[in-house]
Amino acid sequence: MYKHDYLYDFTKRVFLKMGCSREHSEIIADVFLAAELRGHASHGMIRIKDYYDLWKAARINVSPEIRIVHESPSTAVVDGDNGIGMVAARKSMEIAIEKAENAGTGWVATRNSNHFGIAGYYSMMALKHDMIGICLTNANPLVAPTFSISRMMGTNPVAVAIPALEQPPFVADFATTPIARGKLAVAEKKGEKVAFGFVQDKTGKPSDDPSILKSGGSMLTLGGDRLHGSHKGYCLSAIVDIFSALFSGANFGPFVPPSVAYLPVLGKKVGEGTGHFFGAMRIDAFQSPWDFKTKMDEWIGTFRSAIPAEGEERVLIPGDPERESEQRIMKEGIKLVPAIKDDLVIIARELGISFE
Amino acid sequence: MYKHDYLYDFTKRVFLKMGCSREHSEIIADVFLAAELRGHASHGMIRIKDYYDLWKAARINVSPEIRIVHESPSTAVVDGDNGIGMVAARKSMEIAIEKAENAGTGWVATRNSNHFGIAGYYSMMALKHDMIGICLTNANPLVAPTFSISRMMGTNPVAVAIPALEQPPFVADFATTPIARGKLAVAEKKGEKVAFGFVQDKTGKPSDDPSILKSGGSMLTLGGDRLHGSHKGYCLSAIVDIFSALFSGANFGPFVPPSVAYLPVLGKKVGEGTGHFFGAMRIDAFQSPWDFKTKMDEWIGTFRSAIPAEGEERVLIPGDPERESEQRIMKEGIKLVPAIKDDLVIIARELGISFE
Repeated sequence: MYKHDYLYDFTKRVFLKMGCSREHSEIIADVFLAAELRGHASHGMIRIKDYYDLWKAARINVSPEIRIVHESPSTAVVDGDNGIGMVAARKSMEIAIEKAENAGTGWVATRNSNHFGIAGYYSMMALKHDMIGICLTNANPLVAPTFSISRMMGTNPVAVAIPALEQPPFVADFATTPIARGKLAVAEKKGEKVAFGFVQDKTGKPSDDPSILKSGGSMLTLGGDRLHGSHKGYCLSAIVDIFSALFSGANFGPFVPPSVAYLPVLGKKVGEGTGHFFGAMRIDAFQSPWDFKTKMDEWIGTFRSAIPAEGEERVLIPGDPERESEQRIMKEGIKLVPAIKDDLVIIARELGISFE
Repeated sequence: MYKHDYLYDFTKRVFLKMGCSREHSEIIADVFLAAELRGHASHGMIRIKDYYDLWKAARINVSPEIRIVHESPSTAVVDGDNGIGMVAARKSMEIAIEKAENAGTGWVATRNSNHFGIAGYYSMMALKHDMIGICLTNANPLVAPTFSISRMMGTNPVAVAIPALEQPPFVADFATTPIARGKLAVAEKKGEKVAFGFVQDKTGKPSDDPSILKSGGSMLTLGGDRLHGSHKGYCLSAIVDIFSALFSGANFGPFVPPSVAYLPVLGKKVGEGTGHFFGAMRIDAFQSPWDFKTKMDEWIGTFRSAIPAEGEERVLIPGDPERESEQRIMKEGIKLVPAIKDDLVIIARELGISFE
């Protein structure tokens, strides 16, 4: 088990060694560790190697100049200068919050960025300002629209964080596919099948093979098939893509660049890098924050006391599992599987720092 | 088959006779007919009786004074004065568009409203202003959160309309459940079972009985079950509820009032009426409209040319089915089933107007 602070310091040193500024390295480490604590290890330490390999391949800029290229009272477009996604994303969300201070709401579209970790992190930045935070991003294409076999969209997540008074905040952070890609990889490593409704083969037939993406298969949108509403998941994923890419001038859909160096740079570009979209909404642009947050406590209390189905213990509020994970992992420590540890040992050696 | 104009004039006369102003009656008729044309007959002429019965029961205000009760440069809260939902919704979306003209984006939360027809109608109002339009609403509770058997949420739809240049606009308008409630009613009338994944019985067991809501059952969220991502549909539906009710001061979740007179007024209120949420985003607050809409044409062209799965003919863009329905129905006319026609004949007779 690793202590949070040890992995935070290590991560920070990795990015410092890669040439990131102190400020940027701290932001990046903070987002990686937030993923580990919140139980989304698929976006945690396992990903350091991806960023490191992109840097070795000179496909990512470690000293980006992040700047606003267009704005209105409540909006801005930010260019991430091909930097590490966390840096552009955090700056973009800060701008959204600033805009909201003045105009009631703030909306920022970001282009020329890269994979930014967990979307929930940025949405939660709004909470301490008595604002609702929103974060969307597109991602490299693995997902087919309804009726199609072409990989046209990423798992395009939606995150929304809403403050309460006594209750912990409502934090939804979900991919617009039934499962995250990481779960396919886990099943594949264990030699297990997955349930039907997650992936299809190269002809569009339902599949339970977690390695089907390697033979021309694709992931399905939330809903699974047309009968069960996959066209609604497709709508949602498409909206995330358009808000992230077309407002900002980033690549859309099948042209979003890979977030790993072992996949080649795409031949066709329709914009700059990966795109994100951020929103901040001041509660008091609508209601007195006290009234709103009191009602939010009541909303949470009402939903938490919904009657569980037979065999279930309790009804959850979005954000409950992640908060409980945070509390547990902060106390117990972070577990890294041997393969991830081995990767980090190699990276540490190559960069001349220590990891054990 | 009925001509569009005949049903429009009839609908307008019904609401005039109920005491609505000419302007309001025209708005209401326009939304009803838009639902018919777009192939959402479940929100069309069949619903006139619901509004009529609410009026007879003195549960709806036909001369509402719709007013802004709170605002910031990019936001407003509107009170619908317990009017017919279409009237408050259309006015609210107009305010969102006005706000966007000045601040780049405009966001309006509306309380004390009622059922407003199809959400897509209001989102599409933004298109001719070179804006993206958004519309959300909560609705009377039929849907259980993941792990629960309590009906806590409505089918809470999301509508987003995005303009293109040569291509028709992208218009997504979808309930956050696998199917609309109307489809259960249709299956029930035909004596058919439905697929698993739409509803559960009163203990939380999967059910294929379309009449299960009458014996304590509930609808499921998009995703169907936890394994297939129902918690994501729950997140989405909860976000729609919170944006619609808590920003505005409307009733949330299980307290949203029924949209039909045969269900009793609820004993507990936590706000005023039904809640909606509207957004308008000026394209040029982010990009030159020409650049954006050219890219949108490219986006649509790219997705339309995705490869169909075996046995499928083509890949659709959100809004395609509704637009094709509009073109067909405008030419062929609107078909009303005998039961609906009978209802309208009775309403016409009671109001002293003609319908045949």
